[in-house]
Amino acid sequence: MQQQSGPCDGFSAEEKRGLYRAIHERRDVRAQFRPDPIPKSVLARVLTAAHHAPSVGFMQPWDFILIDDLVLRQAVHRLFARENERASANYQGERQELYRSLKLEGILDSPLNLCVTCDRSRGGPHVLGRNTVLDTDLFSVCLAVQNLWLAARVEGIGVGWVSILDPQELAQLLGLPERVHPVAYLCLGYVSEFLAAPELQEKGWRDRLTLLELLHHNRWGTAVPEVESFDFESVGST
Amino acid sequence: MQQQSGPCDGFSAEEKRGLYRAIHERRDVRAQFRPDPIPKSVLARVLTAAHHAPSVGFMQPWDFILIDDLVLRQAVHRLFARENERASANYQGERQELYRSLKLEGILDSPLNLCVTCDRSRGGPHVLGRNTVLDTDLFSVCLAVQNLWLAARVEGIGVGWVSILDPQELAQLLGLPERVHPVAYLCLGYVSEFLAAPELQEKGWRDRLTLLELLHHNRWGTAVPEVESFDFESVGST
Repeated sequence: MQQQSGPCDGFSAEEKRGLYRAIHERRDVRAQFRPDPIPKSVLARVLTAAHHAPSVGFMQPWDFILIDDLVLRQAVHRLFARENERASANYQGERQELYRSLKLEGILDSPLNLCVTCDRSRGGPHVLGRNTVLDTDLFSVCLAVQNLWLAARVEGIGVGWVSILDPQELAQLLGLPERVHPVAYLCLGYVSEFLAAPELQEKGWRDRLTLLELLHHNRWGTAVPEVESFDFESVGST
Repeated sequence: MQQQSGPCDGFSAEEKRGLYRAIHERRDVRAQFRPDPIPKSVLARVLTAAHHAPSVGFMQPWDFILIDDLVLRQAVHRLFARENERASANYQGERQELYRSLKLEGILDSPLNLCVTCDRSRGGPHVLGRNTVLDTDLFSVCLAVQNLWLAARVEGIGVGWVSILDPQELAQLLGLPERVHPVAYLCLGYVSEFLAAPELQEKGWRDRLTLLELLHHNRWGTAVPEVESFDFESVGST
């Protein structure tokens, strides 16, 4: 029998595959939500995954607002609709038509909305590692969001990040204290399917960039030696 | 034989475990780096994982600067040392002693440093979803960093984020154009061990917060009904 794991804390081939599948099969879901509620036991795993993200100085600046109230979600949806209307004015002609045809949120279709916030005062005035770049607390919250997104994926739950919301208006709707910033407004739910590729790629909005062209060696613009030998093709996936 | 997966795109129990293990056994590594180089085939998988992060409007604003030059790393280390000295002045007495005893970076011990940047102009002036919150491009780069961090973990590679660096000085050292912002400076390498718990927790710098206390329902400060039934204890892990 082939030995699949390395040292004592190594990952088996199947465990590795689980992580890579989650990464490559994760989607930003807007249109495929089913209404079935998410069991608390599943939500507990997903939230715990978020809570175990890295954070600057172990600051853990996040809070999680679970939003299921329909009237509140309708109010959030109105914020979205107005900002989205403004955004569509940035495009003209066919591009604007394509923009308007895209469904960019599942606020009302998904059974659960989740706002992940950043308490910018948590841990006091001197958080270890946050003395030079203050926004590292916001960055930590993003790392938590990605943990949550991947954990949701292995549970069969789709997640969509609604970035077209005015943070101040959203904060007011959710009653956030001054010190708390709404970083991510997410829609969560089981889905009818996960698309094979990102929707903006499939619909011709934008292509995936070539990773080889995003690599530099020691200084910006200096090519990595024998960069072709990276063989990203064999890693593959959409 | 027991069927482990659900629908056709479901994850087996072992694949799920792989994702959750990566999340819970990931560490911010500073002191356990081994000098062995990372094979290109492994680095290719890890970088591809980063490249498959979600990004606002499929903007993919990231670039990756692979840094192995010793003179350059020494220069980065000097930036760190100066900022760290300033930071330590924020603490007094025992707390300062503890701060000074912590190793906060592996810039010179790790075989590879990696700067993940954000090209703030990528995709032109109107990136879909970025009209309201401009910093969503920086947030996207953070999501890529977390993908990279987790992929590295299943490969047995430790990652440490050095947040104590002045971004402008770092940008100058790396020759970044004006439009490109250095979001994350990472140290990568195989490790002698992954610690059982986050180092700042083990050393008594700060405790992990109780997740139950970070949950809210619809509005900030409103308790989730029957919140105990979430049973986070059974999800467990450090």
